[in-house]
Order: sequence, then structure tokens, then C-alpha cells
Amino acid sequence: MNKSRLEAFSDGVFAIVITLLILDIRIPNVDYDHLGEALVGIMPHIIAYVMSFLVIGLYWIFHHNTAQLVQKVDRPFIWLNIVFLLFVSFMPFPTTLMGKYPFTQIPVLMYGANLLAANITGRIITVYTYRRDHLKTESFTPAIYKRQMRVYLFVNGLYVLAMAITFINPTISYVVFAGVFVLLIMSTKSNKHGV
Amino acid sequence: MNKSRLEAFSDGVFAIVITLLILDIRIPNVDYDHLGEALVGIMPHIIAYVMSFLVIGLYWIFHHNTAQLVQKVDRPFIWLNIVFLLFVSFMPFPTTLMGKYPFTQIPVLMYGANLLAANITGRIITVYTYRRDHLKTESFTPAIYKRQMRVYLFVNGLYVLAMAITFINPTISYVVFAGVFVLLIMSTKSNKHGV
Amino acid sequence: MNKSRLEAFSDGVFAIVITLLILDIRIPNVDYDHLGEALVGIMPHIIAYVMSFLVIGLYWIFHHNTAQLVQKVDRPFIWLNIVFLLFVSFMPFPTTLMGKYPFTQIPVLMYGANLLAANITGRIITVYTYRRDHLKTESFTPAIYKRQMRVYLFVNGLYVLAMAITFINPTISYVVFAGVFVLLIMSTKSNKHGV
Amino acid sequence: MNKSRLEAFSDGVFAIVITLLILDIRIPNVDYDHLGEALVGIMPHIIAYVMSFLVIGLYWIFHHNTAQLVQKVDRPFIWLNIVFLLFVSFMPFPTTLMGKYPFTQIPVLMYGANLLAANITGRIITVYTYRRDHLKTESFTPAIYKRQMRVYLFVNGLYVLAMAITFINPTISYVVFAGVFVLLIMSTKSNKHGV
Repeated sequence: MNKSRLEAFSDGVFAIVITLLILDIRIPNVDYDHLGEALVGIMPHIIAYVMSFLVIGLYWIFHHNTAQLVQKVDRPFIWLNIVFLLFVSFMPFPTTLMGKYPFTQIPVLMYGANLLAANITGRIITVYTYRRDHLKTESFTPAIYKRQMRVYLFVNGLYVLAMAITFINPTISYVVFAGVFVLLIMSTKSNKHGV
Repeated sequence: MNKSRLEAFSDGVFAIVITLLILDIRIPNVDYDHLGEALVGIMPHIIAYVMSFLVIGLYWIFHHNTAQLVQKVDRPFIWLNIVFLLFVSFMPFPTTLMGKYPFTQIPVLMYGANLLAANITGRIITVYTYRRDHLKTESFTPAIYKRQMRVYLFVNGLYVLAMAITFINPTISYVVFAGVFVLLIMSTKSNKHGV
Repeated sequence: MNKSRLEAFSDGVFAIVITLLILDIRIPNVDYDHLGEALVGIMPHIIAYVMSFLVIGLYWIFHHNTAQLVQKVDRPFIWLNIVFLLFVSFMPFPTTLMGKYPFTQIPVLMYGANLLAANITGRIITVYTYRRDHLKTESFTPAIYKRQMRVYLFVNGLYVLAMAITFINPTISYVVFAGVFVLLIMSTKSNKHGV
Repeated sequence: MNKSRLEAFSDGVFAIVITLLILDIRIPNVDYDHLGEALVGIMPHIIAYVMSFLVIGLYWIFHHNTAQLVQKVDRPFIWLNIVFLLFVSFMPFPTTLMGKYPFTQIPVLMYGANLLAANITGRIITVYTYRRDHLKTESFTPAIYKRQMRVYLFVNGLYVLAMAITFINPTISYVVFAGVFVLLIMSTKSNKHGV
């Protein structure tokens, strides 16, 4: 399999899952007089929608950046990529949970676990590629590798922290998640290699 | 990230959201004898479906036209594009609202707000690109820029008008929306640069 | 807009709508002891699913064949194509109707009307292209044009016939539909130009 | 139709169906206090989700590998491919059944029948291509053909076995399915031609 077809397939999955998120925002069966308050009531769903939309967008960009460090793919790489997409495709589930049971512990734990699973798979892909000279491109330097490992460690640490905080106050966990995303978006902005 | 991959991803989102619209037209649980009137009863859903299908088609064409004025994309451009797609992907929600509570105020306000949000993001993308010589193509002339700014101002003005009219009569707002779409389709038809 | 991007977008819509069909086959809420008969009860849904899957596959092939006769697209062509996709994307709705109210008149009328609308739009696209030398390719000869017009007339006639027959016996309409599809598949098989 | 467009369309269907699977995992309507046990209750859905995600990933890889042995496609090939995609697109249905009625006979029979139908169609495509010199590439040697036929026979045999075992104990059938997938993933790993 050549790399570009794997990318096209992955892009398809990203585009679908990001668009499917809206299906989980359902309008309650109320008469028009109560529509206003019903819409206020689904605000947690909309918050979760926006958050997951941006997260999946972020993962898509990271997936693309990783793909630029790869020149060839082999069978284990393809399967690791499928497992990564499995975790990305799973995102609508904890997203709906967070919308339905806002600011509670279990949904945040599941959301964090899902992000963590995707991230750890991403890290395995990065390590796997870096260690195989026939797979990586020349631009995949030790400096980039070290930087990526640090980012994975840092982000995963914050995810675990957000999950731990749910035992105190799940609402603070939302802030930690949001903080991670802002940090990641900012950090990628300062990337000198352009996009 | 190269421009063509961003376009392919965006095309995917457009194609999915335009096709998902049909999922919101649900058949009521009635026996066959009442099927006829049940189908008449979902006519507002079908009107909203057709309207949103054409709107998303319109945005897709505009997205493509904007892409032709861009030669390179950078990180802020990608994120602006993701926010734009977020608003496009959100369209099924107010569409269903308009189908479920036809000719009432709140759905029209949400529909208008959604279109406005997408449009303002589109305008920001246009301004951002125009001001960066390394991003825009040579064909992105001041004349085209000025014309686009006028179109955005005019269309956004009409969207706000449609939203304001809901306080008098939401049905007239439908006519304003339809008028905007017809105008936009007509105006793009006379584009001398072809498509 | 270049032709290949229009094709890619259309392919996306075809792929999505053909895959969404399965979402309309829902498992009734019964306990395991009644699962067997429940599955027998949804057989009409499965028949409708298979029929629509093949029909959309057929339209996809026809869309591709038409695209091969086109070298450039203009604005009206793009909008005609969007209207065509609108009717294709609508297919899940009458498909579900036929599954839910099997062998009755109204669903068959809607199914036929949907096919007819898609077909008439296809015919308009064909005529529009044929009459514009700067849009069509050299291979779009008068002979091919005449042949296509005959096919459209014949197929549309059979669709109308199937719809008329519902006033006598809707089950026979199914046979007419199936007959049209078999004929179309057979006729394209003998196409000397290959695929 | 050229091969690459058929591949792109098929990739689209694979990407959509693999992502749609998540829609079948629905959160029960319980208050927060019972959310924990409700999530434990949907574990069978998650098991079925993961299994089908990997199976569809596997079919996608096989589809790609088959495409590499083909240089041209004709009408029967396209239709066989559409029938193959029909069975792939049907997968969410028995997947949901297995989630809803875990470790029972009927769902496993349907799941097996679906896999078998897809597999037999795949086998027909392989035979059809191999027997037509103008369709296959030079790399489609008799050795590869024989190897593929053996794999199809072996896998189909195991599917039939899994279905037969449901008459004794459906849970063992799960193990057989899982075993087939592990075997297939392993076998493709040792493929000397790379991916």
C-alpha cells in the first residue's frame, strides 16, 4: 500500500467522524413554548460538540504532520494506523456522554481515556517509524523525534491529570482539556517548518 | 500541509454534511391509512432539507472559489478553515429545528445565526489571505477582494435583516433567505472568469 | 471549478448515501425469543436496501459515464449536478418508506417520483452538455446523444408505468423497477466502448 | 471507468462504514447514578464495535491488495465490486445484533453469513480477474492465485465452522472469528512482497 492511499483513507475517516458529531445533538420533543429552555438545556451537548470538533481537527493536523515524516508504510504501520482511527472514530461516544451528563465524573474519565488511547497509539506509531530507516524520511531528525516524545509525555500527563481531577471536581477537568488544546494549537503555530 | 489535502478534507466534510441532511427527515409511526397526511405533515422538513442542501452546495462552490485565490496555507488558515467547517457541519441542527417548528421565530434565528457565523468566518479567511502575499495567488487582485468584501457585507446584512424580520413574521424571513440564495446563484453565474 | 473536483465531490456523495442506507434498517426492541420473527418482519427493509444500493450504484456508473463526455464544467452544469445529487441523496427516504409499508401504493409512488426526478435532471444535464461545444468532448457524438435520449425516454416511461401500476397492484411495480435495473445493467454490459 | 476512480469510491465506502459503526452504540436513558452499570451493560456493543472495525479494516487492506493485481476494470468487475461493497456496508446490522443479543445464536449466524457473503464475492472477483489477461497485471502469477484460493477456502471453512458451532455454544464462535482475524493479520504480515 502506498502512503497516499493510507492518507486518503485516514482523511476520509477524520472527515466523517468530525461531521457525524452533529448527529448526537438531538432536539428534545417539546412544544414550541418550551423550545427556548430546551435549547438552553442542550448547551452541554453543544460545548462537547465544539470541543470534540476541534480535538478531531487537531488530531487530523497531527496525523498529517506525522505522515510527512514517513516515506513508506508497512503492514504493522497500517494496522497501528487502523487502531489509531478506531480511537478517533470512538470519540462521538464519550462526546455524547459529556453532553448528556455534563460536569460529572464518568463521562470525563471516558473522554480522557479515549484521548489517552489515541495519543498512546500515536506515540507508538511515531516510535515505530523513527526506529525504521526504510520507513522514515530524512527530515525525521532526532531533534524532531525528541520534541515529539516530549509533547506526547506532556499531553498524556495532562490527560491523566484531568482524569484524576474528576475525583475532586469534574468541571476543572474541562478547563484542563481546554488548556491542553489551546497549548497544542499555540505550540504548532510556532513551528518553524511551517505547517 | 499542502493546499490540495486541505481541499480534499473540506470537500469530504461538505459531501458528508450535505448527505447527512436526509437523516433528519424521519417517517412518523403511523399506520398506512394515515401515511398520506403524515407525509404532508413533514413537508416543512422537506422544504428545510432542500434549502440547506442548496445552501451547503453554495458554500462548497464559494469554498472552492476562495481556494483558487490561495497558493499556500499556513497554520492559522487551517484553523480558520476548521472553524468554517464547524459552522457548515452544524447546519443540520437548525435545519431540523426549522422542519420541526416551521415558520416560527427561534429556528429562523438559529438558522440565520449559523449562516452568519459561517459567513463571518469566510470573510475572516478572505481578509487573512489577501493581506499575506506569500499565501495568495497573483489572481487575487484588489478588485476581486473589494467585490468579495461587498458581497459579504451585503449577504450578512440580509441575514441580519431576515433575523430581525422574525420579530414581525418568521415566514417572510424564509423569503429573504431564499432571495439571498437566488441572488448569490445568479451573481456567480455572471462571473466572467468562468467558474 | 475543474471537472475532476466535481467528480470527486459527487463520488463522495454517492459513497455516503449508498452507505447510509443501512442506518434505516433498525432492529425492533424484542426479546431474544422473538428475534427470529422480528428479523423476518424486517425483510421488506432488506429488499428495499438491496434495491436502492444497486440503483445508486447504477446512477454512480451513469454519472461517471456522463462525466467522460464532458471536458469542462460551467456554473449551470455545477448547479444541475447539485440538484441531481439532491435527488440521489433523497433516496434513503422513499427506501425507508418502502421498507416500512411494503407493497403499498404511496411508497412506490414516492420511490418512482424520486427516480424520475433524478433521471429527468440527468437528461437535462446531458442535453445541456451536448448543446455546448466548449463543454463536451469530441467523443460525445450525435449517435451517443441519440442513444442516451432513447434510454432516458424508455426508462422514464417505465418509471411512469410502474407508478401507474400502483393503482392496480403495487407489488407488480416492484417487478417493473427490478426489470428496469436488470435491463439497464444488461444494456451497459454490451457497451462496445468498454466501461 | 478507470481503476483509480473505482478504488477511490470503494475507499470512501470503507471509510464511511467503518466510522458509522459508532452510531450503533447508544447510551441508555438512565440517570447518572445508574450510568456506571449502564456502561457495563453496553460492553457487548463495544466488543462487537472493535471486532467489526478491525474486520472492515482487514477487508479494506485485502481490497487494496486485490486492486494491485488488476490493471483495468470492466463492467462485470465494477458490478461485482458493488455487490462486494453491499455486503461490507451491511456489516453494521449484524454488528448491532451481536451487541444487542450477545453470545446468542442468531446474531452470530447473521454475522458469519455476512462475512461469508463478502468473502465469496471477493473470491469471485479474484477468479474473474485471474481468468482475463487484459484485466490482470503481470504480477498476478499462478502462485499468488493459488495462495489466494487456499486462503479463501480456509477462511470460508472457518466461518462455516463458527456458524456451525453456534448450535453448541455461540460464545466459542466469537473465539473462532477472533482466531480467523488474528490468523489473517499474521499471515499478511509475513507477506514478502511488503504491503
